[in-house]
Amino acid sequence: MADILENIRSLTKKSKRKMVMCIADGLGGAPHPGFGGKTELEAARTPNMDALARASSLGLMNPVQYGVTPGSGPGHIALFGYDPENLTIGRGVLEALGVGFHLEKGDVAARANFATRDSSGVISDRRAGRISTEDCRRLVDRLAQAVPEVEGTKIILEPGIEHRFVMVLRGEGLGDRLRDTDPQKEGMSPHTPVALDDASQKTARVVTTFLDEVSSVIADEPKANAVLLRGFAASPRLETFPERYAVSALAIALYPMYKGIARLFGFDVPDISGTLRDEVECMKQKWNEYDFFFLHYKDTDKAGEDGNFTSKVEYIETFDQVIPDILSVKPDVLVITGDHSTPSLLKSHSWHPSPVLLHSPYSGFDRKERFTERECATGYLGTFPARALMSLLLANALRLDKYGA
Amino acid sequence: MADILENIRSLTKKSKRKMVMCIADGLGGAPHPGFGGKTELEAARTPNMDALARASSLGLMNPVQYGVTPGSGPGHIALFGYDPENLTIGRGVLEALGVGFHLEKGDVAARANFATRDSSGVISDRRAGRISTEDCRRLVDRLAQAVPEVEGTKIILEPGIEHRFVMVLRGEGLGDRLRDTDPQKEGMSPHTPVALDDASQKTARVVTTFLDEVSSVIADEPKANAVLLRGFAASPRLETFPERYAVSALAIALYPMYKGIARLFGFDVPDISGTLRDEVECMKQKWNEYDFFFLHYKDTDKAGEDGNFTSKVEYIETFDQVIPDILSVKPDVLVITGDHSTPSLLKSHSWHPSPVLLHSPYSGFDRKERFTERECATGYLGTFPARALMSLLLANALRLDKYGA
Repeated sequence: MADILENIRSLTKKSKRKMVMCIADGLGGAPHPGFGGKTELEAARTPNMDALARASSLGLMNPVQYGVTPGSGPGHIALFGYDPENLTIGRGVLEALGVGFHLEKGDVAARANFATRDSSGVISDRRAGRISTEDCRRLVDRLAQAVPEVEGTKIILEPGIEHRFVMVLRGEGLGDRLRDTDPQKEGMSPHTPVALDDASQKTARVVTTFLDEVSSVIADEPKANAVLLRGFAASPRLETFPERYAVSALAIALYPMYKGIARLFGFDVPDISGTLRDEVECMKQKWNEYDFFFLHYKDTDKAGEDGNFTSKVEYIETFDQVIPDILSVKPDVLVITGDHSTPSLLKSHSWHPSPVLLHSPYSGFDRKERFTERECATGYLGTFPARALMSLLLANALRLDKYGA
Repeated sequence: MADILENIRSLTKKSKRKMVMCIADGLGGAPHPGFGGKTELEAARTPNMDALARASSLGLMNPVQYGVTPGSGPGHIALFGYDPENLTIGRGVLEALGVGFHLEKGDVAARANFATRDSSGVISDRRAGRISTEDCRRLVDRLAQAVPEVEGTKIILEPGIEHRFVMVLRGEGLGDRLRDTDPQKEGMSPHTPVALDDASQKTARVVTTFLDEVSSVIADEPKANAVLLRGFAASPRLETFPERYAVSALAIALYPMYKGIARLFGFDVPDISGTLRDEVECMKQKWNEYDFFFLHYKDTDKAGEDGNFTSKVEYIETFDQVIPDILSVKPDVLVITGDHSTPSLLKSHSWHPSPVLLHSPYSGFDRKERFTERECATGYLGTFPARALMSLLLANALRLDKYGA
């Protein structure tokens, strides 16, 4: 048992205690000079989270490592208690999840771009002049009809935004170790597909044939006359979340990406839409059916990415307003945190640790007046790696046996 | 040097500076709603530790990992600076240490239970109706006389409390990879001994013969007519504490388990009994003979396990009262902490990090008014893994060379 967090399964035990992990995506921020040097959490009116903070333990979590800004993949891998430095979800898989595609075991997915190729065969625009999403849909339909299958392998294409789409190969014996065909620069020809291991030879042949047939189908297109592929990836084989922690687990999210990641980890994922209120309502309806609830709220991250401080503050306040409703079902353990920080100051994900609040009868409490980054920095939980959050949650739910005699 | 703490030996140097590590077992607690939301340390009057805290650095230590509750084995392995995720002390060995048995190199120990077997051979009570400790002694004597040796291997039996005893095999060529014979459930027959590797074949034969002979000896007993064995283990082979740190080391403890663990790690262990005052007296008498003193105080843990908040507070106060006596010998480095927390709220060991106080001319100081969990949470030492405590101790004793040029 060299890494006890990786082998926590050997310590899990059953309990009736229920756990809720609330993720406000990109929750953490950074002090903004344009707003009195406050972070979004500091600027927001959050009476409910503040009241909870007074009766909870606070801390800061590094999603992956100090200074490392995670994507949504590593961010969620860590929240689920897996090691984001050793487990990765390939780009192609994330793209497929992002467009709401249900991957099956053995599928290989890749991110695809329409591109412009000049008469000499060189890529003159890797994004085909950012064709419209409608054009993308139309072209994807053409390709799908023209090349539905190669060597018994189904080729499934899902349009995305503008020039982006996703290619999924479904069939027997498909490895995913393939070189990108996207040269990542203009002025070069696309790379030919090359298998990087024996198990991926068939995949390389299928992709080669597909690309050959594709070129003739869209040769007459003014802009989108070529396809570039990158990030070939199969779903990772992993111990599922319910297996690892001996829990039944429901993930409530509105965005396809988060539904998809949760599904990869073996969560049940209801097909809901609407608002945060609908998500909380869903949790309440399913309360008796599951041990663990993952609740994902996206809007805080979007506002941060837009660099809109005021809007992020408002979304934090919206989030705060559902807290009483979440508490009304009386979770035994409640966590509020983010999968990473998204300071509006930076208009992007960032490396800043995520503020975290842990509430249970055994969590202890800091007597802090507010739930903010600066209060969390001196909280009882200290600064810890996000992948340890699950063991703290399970411990507080009295779901872990003693380690060693 | 992949893990510098594991290879700290390469940095150690001699010094005259003396170190004292005081362990109040299960010292840390959790806020108790029945006592004003205070922890036991917060509720206790501890003028001596508080005065020391004002001139020391404070922090919190995770014995093993966030959320993981350690047994005494992993707890002490970490305090001694070894990696509790990779080094384990087997159940049988801990049990033998717990009854005060002096294990020799090559001994294999197992935890044994008297059990009740019905006429069909099935275990109807794994604890033989919890026979009295006197009955256990009597039966262990009968067995020891009847089967003192098998195949040149001595069989040594040590009675424990009620139905429990310890079996130690002493001889040549004994592996310890043996399946438990205890089926862990009633309504099943005991498992036959099975060697899980070649080196343990002889052990399996000896145990099989022992159990066969045992059955006929106690066949007529009304309750305790069978023996179940589990946790076969040999002492771990390890770099001793004096070797690793280039120190002479004395461990002062009253309970057999802690004397035994310290002996495993190569400490000298005086055969003392009495109270905490006697332990401190022993340290003072031996002060000139050793570099490093480990002082173990058990009562805090016992009160926590009993769920007796008030009693744990009193034991903490008792501990506080010997601090001036410990300081009277002028240790160069002094640490006060626990091997794990035992909140009376939980009536058991817990995952809560241990408060730690480090005092030396170079330790720095936090100017905290009290030595409590919540003060430690914002201490200069931060929250760190317990296995790093030894390197902090050695550093403060100026016993570690620079790493790298």
